[in-house]
Amino acid sequence: MTERIHNFNPGPAALPLSVLEKVQAEMLNFRDSGMSILEISHRSDLFGEVLASARNRARRLFNLPDNYRVLFIQGGASLQFAMAPMNFLGTGDRADYINTGTWATKAFEQATLLGKNVRYAASSEDQSFSCIPTKADIDTGARYVHITSNNTIRGTQWRTYPDTGGIPLVCDMCSDMLSRPVPVEKFGLIYAGAQKNLGPAGLTLVIIREDMLLWNPDAVMPTLMRYKTYSDHYSMYNTPPCFGIYVAEKVMAWLEEDIGGLEAMASLNAAKAERLYGALDATDFYQGTAAEADRSLMNVTFRLRHRDLEAIFIKEALAAGLGGLKGHKSVGGCRASLYNATGMDAVESLVAFMKNFEKRMG
Amino acid sequence: MTERIHNFNPGPAALPLSVLEKVQAEMLNFRDSGMSILEISHRSDLFGEVLASARNRARRLFNLPDNYRVLFIQGGASLQFAMAPMNFLGTGDRADYINTGTWATKAFEQATLLGKNVRYAASSEDQSFSCIPTKADIDTGARYVHITSNNTIRGTQWRTYPDTGGIPLVCDMCSDMLSRPVPVEKFGLIYAGAQKNLGPAGLTLVIIREDMLLWNPDAVMPTLMRYKTYSDHYSMYNTPPCFGIYVAEKVMAWLEEDIGGLEAMASLNAAKAERLYGALDATDFYQGTAAEADRSLMNVTFRLRHRDLEAIFIKEALAAGLGGLKGHKSVGGCRASLYNATGMDAVESLVAFMKNFEKRMG
Repeated sequence: MTERIHNFNPGPAALPLSVLEKVQAEMLNFRDSGMSILEISHRSDLFGEVLASARNRARRLFNLPDNYRVLFIQGGASLQFAMAPMNFLGTGDRADYINTGTWATKAFEQATLLGKNVRYAASSEDQSFSCIPTKADIDTGARYVHITSNNTIRGTQWRTYPDTGGIPLVCDMCSDMLSRPVPVEKFGLIYAGAQKNLGPAGLTLVIIREDMLLWNPDAVMPTLMRYKTYSDHYSMYNTPPCFGIYVAEKVMAWLEEDIGGLEAMASLNAAKAERLYGALDATDFYQGTAAEADRSLMNVTFRLRHRDLEAIFIKEALAAGLGGLKGHKSVGGCRASLYNATGMDAVESLVAFMKNFEKRMG
Repeated sequence: MTERIHNFNPGPAALPLSVLEKVQAEMLNFRDSGMSILEISHRSDLFGEVLASARNRARRLFNLPDNYRVLFIQGGASLQFAMAPMNFLGTGDRADYINTGTWATKAFEQATLLGKNVRYAASSEDQSFSCIPTKADIDTGARYVHITSNNTIRGTQWRTYPDTGGIPLVCDMCSDMLSRPVPVEKFGLIYAGAQKNLGPAGLTLVIIREDMLLWNPDAVMPTLMRYKTYSDHYSMYNTPPCFGIYVAEKVMAWLEEDIGGLEAMASLNAAKAERLYGALDATDFYQGTAAEADRSLMNVTFRLRHRDLEAIFIKEALAAGLGGLKGHKSVGGCRASLYNATGMDAVESLVAFMKNFEKRMG
């Protein structure tokens, strides 16, 4: 294939073409330095400007209050599953988790592995995680409440965040970060691997309420597991994932300057999802798998009425230039991920293909 | 500056131009997938081939025995400073460290921070780390002996590795990994951030003797801090730093196919260093700072007899297309890093500039 395809991958996922073109154009010579971005010191002024710009763009896009910090970390959400309880739960402390699927379960399991006092305040496991729990039995003494804002595997999403009575949310926002505005004040910690809406795998964006940097100061842990290390050193205690930060800065520039910010991005994302869910709902040939009220705007999960057509559907879609439509191996079926960089043109092409496929096979 | 410069950066550092050109050429469409390498799933066959090739190239280049594993991790050497003692030292265990500079000290401090029983078996601190200790008082009951194979700040390098009486070396090889053949059998663990001789920052190459995966199995630690997690999941427990692995694979392909392996690379590196040290030694105008027997082939540290000319030297060198010559801020002076991708042509240009500078200023 010599042309670019429409990319519905669940992550790593589509990036804006204009960003990739800029990365390509300056790969051999970054800002007239005579060196690639891959070859310059993280302590250079050139990289310092990239890092500061990335931090400031994140502050503006999230509309962060002054008492929040932006950190760039490695290790993905899976490392955050451990860092959050290590940093926030001292002896005698406890936290609540809400279970909405595989990743929420993994976050909980990492806290229990570390011997932390955590419990589920709510779960939709008895409904196969096809929905978001409608209410949670939140412990008023919990230090935080952990949620997964969007569930890539099951295709559900918190449309509004739970009322915790002022207890800060700790949120795995991997798969919908920067897809819509967020009421940051409800959150104590937001973390997200970059590889959906922000950039390359290997970079984690973390937003933390600054008082929480000091919640468990005496705990023994590696220096790089402590949020305060990143805050004190502006994410440069050691060499950061420079290329990831560089791409993320460009993606956030695209969001601010080409898209117009998160309100505008949210409108585009809502329109894309509405178009695709509308097409699914217009026929019995395709069947959405998530409860309608909790449908994700990022990951549209569906089955074909004739299950044995699904492999053919995915294969023919790819041949037609529509990639990444296979559902997660743990649930099967189909999934179209509609992250920020997957445009309405991609959705229109998918809808047209789906109609044609139904006509031929239905 | 519209041309590429000669890059003597200490890390992130120069990469082979042919590698950067390939990365650039396929940035929008990796292997006819219609997607960038940044946009494809880490679980795809396409990426699986990249990962397997990177692992196999590392095995061949290091000539690894069957009982060693190659792991790709995030977090840099600074995370390894913690992971090694966490994974290898259980209750009652102890380890020896040899102190040859800033990074060796940091490795030791991380072990003590975690409450591990470690001590220095040797140190060159009383000689301002200008040399490698000639002998070490190694505890025969130590589980491992930690060394830093090359010291970027002070410009020293272990030319031959210490005799430990069979105790495995745990080695921070950040700044000379893949620059020369290594007698792997002496080592239990080799770790190195990619950003000198392998690729982009944000990737750590780890080589581990497989029995050591099981040395401290009952310790409580985050899943991602355990080497066995990476070994069991072929470095894919969670999303790996895909782009870093992709570039590293290309750099190792260059080493194998263009250079001809580590023996050939070592000869080239020795010739480059000999040329530059020869130029330093031919005049009193420049003064090498490391003990002659322990001089690093990777980082040539030097001062100008007239200290107040150093800033001018560095500035004029950059204007002449020779970048990255400033010494580490903790020691000052000058430093030319001669990693694999910095060729003899760069060294010849530097030597010519140095002669001309001396003539004008001397």
